Amino acid sequence: MIVGIIGLGLIGGSMAIDLRKRGFADTILGVEDNPVNAEAAMKLELANEIVPYEECIERSDIVVMAIPVGTAVKMLPDILDHFEKEKDCNRIVIDTCSTKEQIVNGVHYHSMRKRYVATHPMAGTEYSGPWAAMPNLFDGKACIFANTEDSDPKAVKIIEKLYDTLNMRPLYMSASNHDVHTAYVSHISHITSFALALTVLDKEKDEKHIFDLASGGFSSTVRLAKSSADMWVPILMQNRDNVLKVIDTYIDKMKLFRDAISDYDGDRVRTLINDANKIKRIIK
Amino acid sequence: MIVGIIGLGLIGGSMAIDLRKRGFADTILGVEDNPVNAEAAMKLELANEIVPYEECIERSDIVVMAIPVGTAVKMLPDILDHFEKEKDCNRIVIDTCSTKEQIVNGVHYHSMRKRYVATHPMAGTEYSGPWAAMPNLFDGKACIFANTEDSDPKAVKIIEKLYDTLNMRPLYMSASNHDVHTAYVSHISHITSFALALTVLDKEKDEKHIFDLASGGFSSTVRLAKSSADMWVPILMQNRDNVLKVIDTYIDKMKLFRDAISDYDGDRVRTLINDANKIKRIIK
Repeated sequence: MIVGIIGLGLIGGSMAIDLRKRGFADTILGVEDNPVNAEAAMKLELANEIVPYEECIERSDIVVMAIPVGTAVKMLPDILDHFEKEKDCNRIVIDTCSTKEQIVNGVHYHSMRKRYVATHPMAGTEYSGPWAAMPNLFDGKACIFANTEDSDPKAVKIIEKLYDTLNMRPLYMSASNHDVHTAYVSHISHITSFALALTVLDKEKDEKHIFDLASGGFSSTVRLAKSSADMWVPILMQNRDNVLKVIDTYIDKMKLFRDAISDYDGDRVRTLINDANKIKRIIK
Repeated sequence: MIVGIIGLGLIGGSMAIDLRKRGFADTILGVEDNPVNAEAAMKLELANEIVPYEECIERSDIVVMAIPVGTAVKMLPDILDHFEKEKDCNRIVIDTCSTKEQIVNGVHYHSMRKRYVATHPMAGTEYSGPWAAMPNLFDGKACIFANTEDSDPKAVKIIEKLYDTLNMRPLYMSASNHDVHTAYVSHISHITSFALALTVLDKEKDEKHIFDLASGGFSSTVRLAKSSADMWVPILMQNRDNVLKVIDTYIDKMKLFRDAISDYDGDRVRTLINDANKIKRIIK
């Protein structure tokens, strides 16, 4: 099997490592526009070859778009156009993006829609680029398959095998449910971290040594604030409506704390914390 | 050296383990009101003996209050009263609490003020109780000494040695600066986590399987929401004014994101994220 990966960053690079090591891919073709990243990807042996975009589509059995969602939305119709030109094309294209509705809607009426499988492997770190790629990144995590009824069942099976090789648990849902859920369990966490970083950095202008004090708790809460704008701007733009709803709920909860603290109302603060503690049921 | 520890939970219990193992304390006397915790502390061998409060004060060279700050504020004058009754008392009392201004102000005019050293070892986890105690918890972390000019220099030296045994970096500042700094690097992180947990738990009422999706990023951001109300209610009450200021700044930052996303203004979102990324300078 030849797997072509467009974007050999954290996600694409980590897939490359495990798909080859675990025998799913004989050959990894990489596409990297950025020459520094391309050189790093070869040095790190993420791909067998770095090839031009068109060549990747023509030679790969599976094309993986592991790029920011804004770019993927534009690229997907073009890849399907390439498939269309080929007689009896059996190639498959997948994406790994964190929002699904726009990318899926953009090709809904494409004649080659069935060759596309929409997936979101829910794994990552706050780092990016080929240097961030690592083995075993996906092990034990969830991978969402969106709108599989619009894909060729045989293509879905092959992609299920791909993610099974990565030891991921498959979950199936509609693109629109996906975008609601990820707003809650992923997108808002990033925004709260960004806002926390901005709050503390504001303060740091006056008080240089505040960071001597940064505890483990602060570090873990602010960790996601290191995440890249290239990845997150398009996610937040594309998932705007869901994200706004979650931000509003979140600001309301912050205000409940603010008001209870402002009123010196320890009992209300206690109730809020006890309610929040119920997250223990879910997060180990 | 006999060290008496009032409260053998996460902080007190972890101090007990390392102070004895590393030879600073020959004997650890523990005070535990809760009989279940007392039994657990003995089973876990955190203390040599569990003794009544008064006996602990009378026998210990150093008394450590490792209890919620609300209780500590009331207990400290009583401990100093005990010291007062003893001729030429050389005992020392310290606290380990996360807010400093109220506890320090409460004994400012006490005749035995010099026997108290106000400290805050900046270490912990989201767990509590004797079961949460662990070796090496404090290694490499910062310990704040507040208002040391009000303590006997010899007592400060001994307590510096205690924290040096725990491999902590000492930092010196006023109680009021301490409370500002910790509002930024610790207290706000807890509130943002509590609010995040409440936001997601609200949603879960309708959508049971949302947590199948919880990614590593969400888990790390929400981790502190497991922290106990017993510890955090008094901290937030005592540090009310600083905490309110930080919450307000934080809500303003959230609104910057909200408005930029609402306006579909990718450039503004990008600028906010790039600014937040500067946290990389400080948090590894």
